[in-house]
Amino acid sequence: MNPGIDDLPVRDELRGKSPYGAPQLDVPVRLNTNENPYPLPDALVDRIAERVREAAKHLNRYPDRDAVELRTRLAAYLTDTTGYAVSRAGVWAANGSNEVLQQLLQTFGGPGRTALGFEPSYSMHALIARGTGTGWISGPRRPDFTIDLRAAEDALAEHRPDVVFITTPNNPTGNAVPRETVLALHDAAQAVKPTMVVVDEAYVEFSHGDSLLPLLEGRPHLVVSRTMSKAFGAAGLRLGYLAAHPAVVDAVQLVRLPYHLSAVTQATALAALEHTDTLLGYVEQLKSERDRLVAELRATGYEVVESDANFVQFGRFEGPGGSHAAWQRILDRGVLVRDNGIPGWLRVSAGTPEENDAFLDAARELKKEQSA
Amino acid sequence: MNPGIDDLPVRDELRGKSPYGAPQLDVPVRLNTNENPYPLPDALVDRIAERVREAAKHLNRYPDRDAVELRTRLAAYLTDTTGYAVSRAGVWAANGSNEVLQQLLQTFGGPGRTALGFEPSYSMHALIARGTGTGWISGPRRPDFTIDLRAAEDALAEHRPDVVFITTPNNPTGNAVPRETVLALHDAAQAVKPTMVVVDEAYVEFSHGDSLLPLLEGRPHLVVSRTMSKAFGAAGLRLGYLAAHPAVVDAVQLVRLPYHLSAVTQATALAALEHTDTLLGYVEQLKSERDRLVAELRATGYEVVESDANFVQFGRFEGPGGSHAAWQRILDRGVLVRDNGIPGWLRVSAGTPEENDAFLDAARELKKEQSA
Repeated sequence: MNPGIDDLPVRDELRGKSPYGAPQLDVPVRLNTNENPYPLPDALVDRIAERVREAAKHLNRYPDRDAVELRTRLAAYLTDTTGYAVSRAGVWAANGSNEVLQQLLQTFGGPGRTALGFEPSYSMHALIARGTGTGWISGPRRPDFTIDLRAAEDALAEHRPDVVFITTPNNPTGNAVPRETVLALHDAAQAVKPTMVVVDEAYVEFSHGDSLLPLLEGRPHLVVSRTMSKAFGAAGLRLGYLAAHPAVVDAVQLVRLPYHLSAVTQATALAALEHTDTLLGYVEQLKSERDRLVAELRATGYEVVESDANFVQFGRFEGPGGSHAAWQRILDRGVLVRDNGIPGWLRVSAGTPEENDAFLDAARELKKEQSA
Repeated sequence: MNPGIDDLPVRDELRGKSPYGAPQLDVPVRLNTNENPYPLPDALVDRIAERVREAAKHLNRYPDRDAVELRTRLAAYLTDTTGYAVSRAGVWAANGSNEVLQQLLQTFGGPGRTALGFEPSYSMHALIARGTGTGWISGPRRPDFTIDLRAAEDALAEHRPDVVFITTPNNPTGNAVPRETVLALHDAAQAVKPTMVVVDEAYVEFSHGDSLLPLLEGRPHLVVSRTMSKAFGAAGLRLGYLAAHPAVVDAVQLVRLPYHLSAVTQATALAALEHTDTLLGYVEQLKSERDRLVAELRATGYEVVESDANFVQFGRFEGPGGSHAAWQRILDRGVLVRDNGIPGWLRVSAGTPEENDAFLDAARELKKEQSA
């Protein structure tokens, strides 16, 4: 007997599913997972080794369960960059924003409850809902990927979700949700029933506009989630965090696994936070490269969604094979972009200038082929 | 308005609960969380810094999602130490065995399903069940903390759990479950319905007996969970893992958060695995100290549960205040042990010889007081 998954007593809703994850292909230019293309500066690599060496001397002990120093530094970062005063008590951290979101759904979602997101959006929201037994409701977007407030309000009234996700800038489309739309959605949700509203700001450092963090004032049902994967160039670190009313932080501690955040993760994140200025300098370069991608793709004749992130959604691919065929043609030229399964569209991450040149060359050749 | 947890729309079953975690008190001798008292050797600290430095150079990229190198090395460790050949495909790793167990319950437990453990046992089993929406069933133990096979079989037949936990050596009581009991429980569970049986071997390296890993042969519903927190002296690392049929590993990948294991965690764990021999040398010292604790406590007149772990459960405290008063009296002498809420008993972790001397002095004084 050589049993497979379906021979095991797995939950019914998992049968026939595949694990989440972009294909990992070994190609010269990988612009498929919105990674920051700039390696950490040498001084920071040194500092990480130094801080981890110190942490390793006490590795036989459990880590600080409450990550006090790290949360203090994250709060200072948020306060410094948004002008809105956040304290340690209003910040929580976990292994990637995925774990932050999982803890939120374990606390405020779960069996017999539902979460709603406006799709297409970050597909892990729906998957984490499934993983936590939370019902998932796909909320509407317009064909141009903006949120239609009236339609959204109707969806909230009809489905009465317990948790609402608003991703801004949105992934994979790149567009930001206007502040007044987020406020209106928050208020519309509360008008139906007490609802947690999670603003996923994973990409906000790349935005033309401001963080929505100041909206936390007086709104204990609002949560802003963040990550060090993108702006801090530390996808390998897996450090996500949230800012919210301290009561929300107290609540997620009821479901967090004790000592969830290792001493080496805390040490590495603290080192990276010491180098915030340098890392935010890379962000400025990426914003300018992102703007160049948008402009050049448009000049080449592509349709492009306005982007406030470190990636750009472009299209449209209507011909035979649609976006998947286009994805393959770009891959044939050594550039890996992302097919998120949105018919007619592909997503490209902003890389280094050289990587973006390689991608733009491939995109121009593809356009020529398709016009021929 | 300054809302607290209960003003938020948290799940009903979380209302009025407190976060899990032992009190963290700043006292000279801390023997309360089963940590390994030996700091990592300098050569290993150096190697960790070196491997993390290498990993930090690529920290802008996501980590190896499938932790291939780490799982390969963990499989080799299991094969070397148990004589039972395990391959990478049959090993999975996560942030602490808590996350491993959470993934197992998300896959095989969850809403509408139940898990059963024989209590008292590792209290996180029940808490992770709650966090994943899995119903929890408290299975029976005898007053001497062994498992009564007939009573256990009755409980399995009555409750028909989807997942069964068997902790061996058991925490907090320290006693191992005999191989034939585990086998009988496995078979009895399968006779009722297909049931995942999770053997939690967090402390097995300290056992007088052998690992139950070879029982995996031909039993695709059996899972053995392990950790690097104890025998590897790396509680701060948060590295748990499991061995099982490869189909089980495939199945948990349906619920694991993608890229859950950071590049620094993988690098640190790999460094520790290079130093297995040294670390297992410390384990031998701890086993001998554990045996000394058992002998000395008995000589002092305490009742002691036979221990195969790096801790000892001792009692009984029947007088005024019971075990909590005894805990406080020991703490007054600068030694922190653990009150796991089992009436009449306390648990002490095996520390360094000096720490154990300090504890034994306190225990002897306490006994004198109580006999006075």
